[in-house]
Amino acid sequence: MREAYHVELEELAGKLADMSAQAATAMERATKALLEADLALAEQVIGDDSKIDDARAQCEEEAYALLALQAPVATDLRTVLAVIHAAESLERMGDLALHVAKAARRRHPANALPEPVQPYFAEMGEAVVRLARRTQEVIKSKDVEAARSLEADDDQVDEIHRHLFSVIMAKDWEFGVPAAVDVTLLGRFYERYADHAVSVAKRMVFVATGKMPGYGSDEDI
Amino acid sequence: MREAYHVELEELAGKLADMSAQAATAMERATKALLEADLALAEQVIGDDSKIDDARAQCEEEAYALLALQAPVATDLRTVLAVIHAAESLERMGDLALHVAKAARRRHPANALPEPVQPYFAEMGEAVVRLARRTQEVIKSKDVEAARSLEADDDQVDEIHRHLFSVIMAKDWEFGVPAAVDVTLLGRFYERYADHAVSVAKRMVFVATGKMPGYGSDEDI
Repeated sequence: MREAYHVELEELAGKLADMSAQAATAMERATKALLEADLALAEQVIGDDSKIDDARAQCEEEAYALLALQAPVATDLRTVLAVIHAAESLERMGDLALHVAKAARRRHPANALPEPVQPYFAEMGEAVVRLARRTQEVIKSKDVEAARSLEADDDQVDEIHRHLFSVIMAKDWEFGVPAAVDVTLLGRFYERYADHAVSVAKRMVFVATGKMPGYGSDEDI
Repeated sequence: MREAYHVELEELAGKLADMSAQAATAMERATKALLEADLALAEQVIGDDSKIDDARAQCEEEAYALLALQAPVATDLRTVLAVIHAAESLERMGDLALHVAKAARRRHPANALPEPVQPYFAEMGEAVVRLARRTQEVIKSKDVEAARSLEADDDQVDEIHRHLFSVIMAKDWEFGVPAAVDVTLLGRFYERYADHAVSVAKRMVFVATGKMPGYGSDEDI
């Protein structure tokens, strides 16, 4: 029985890692769609989102089954609950990629982003996709140091995000309010995506170390 | 043992209802602080946020203890897990009220909102506080119809939120980009707060009816 439990838990972790990979691919494509005003790619991200939703529902169902059939206690119980929370965050990351894709579609054939801010979004996109892929690794390796290294990428995202505000609020911003509103919301989507990736990694650290991650707001704005 | 379980579950529901009340009060005060540029009130909301965080941690710990000691299955198991999810959403509502209070503090002694959009925020604030208070009622009464009635308030929030965009993007918007950015982010905080309230109520419907709420994005943007 204990062995069956750990085999099932390993399978669940594998599914979580797959969800991270899906969330990474979704944001990678959404960012490309956004920067290149690529409607077909945006539609692909929008169409694929239900797969991440389904994967989350499946993870949750399997975690429920594990709880009901094995009645784990102590660390084992916390591990299963960490999986349920992580699946929720990963689904949310998929939703945020979806929002980026929808913004690209909404402005098509125009580009949603004025040219001067595009490099920032390219950089943020790379950083958050890297975060999601590292999260995928952490889920598989349960490497505490690797999980901690995510904070650096998250700090980079926060820094670009803050800098974006200074760009759109500068006196020489010449693209008007609608573009500033798009930049504001899109910037927030990337920043929240990064926060969720870090929160998943933190939960995996907890699973490995037994130390509970902190509660409360882990975002800046 | 079964009786002890149901007594403890009732106590947990009571704590969730308290969290809803706290989240409602936080957003009510944050909105007043925002509309009246009331720094002391903003500081109060900011200082009180840790209480909602603590309440969430306590709910989660008690739910974990319930799972470990009583090993519920079937509907009982789903009910405890619904409590864990609901506590997370309620904490997030507290965070969103905190963001509103921080925006009020950041612009003080100026008002963060230009005069023409203030009535919209007053209306959104009333609607979302009403949502949180109804959620509090639903947690106590488990009244399915009352839970469904939340959708109307949520639709109202979405409508005001959409209208806000047309106001800030209109040609005659005279308050510049920084104010538009504040309105964009603040509008989103209210809209997300409403989404979380509805999601808590939906989970309570599920607890009462056994029907699982839908997954996926329940937001508009």
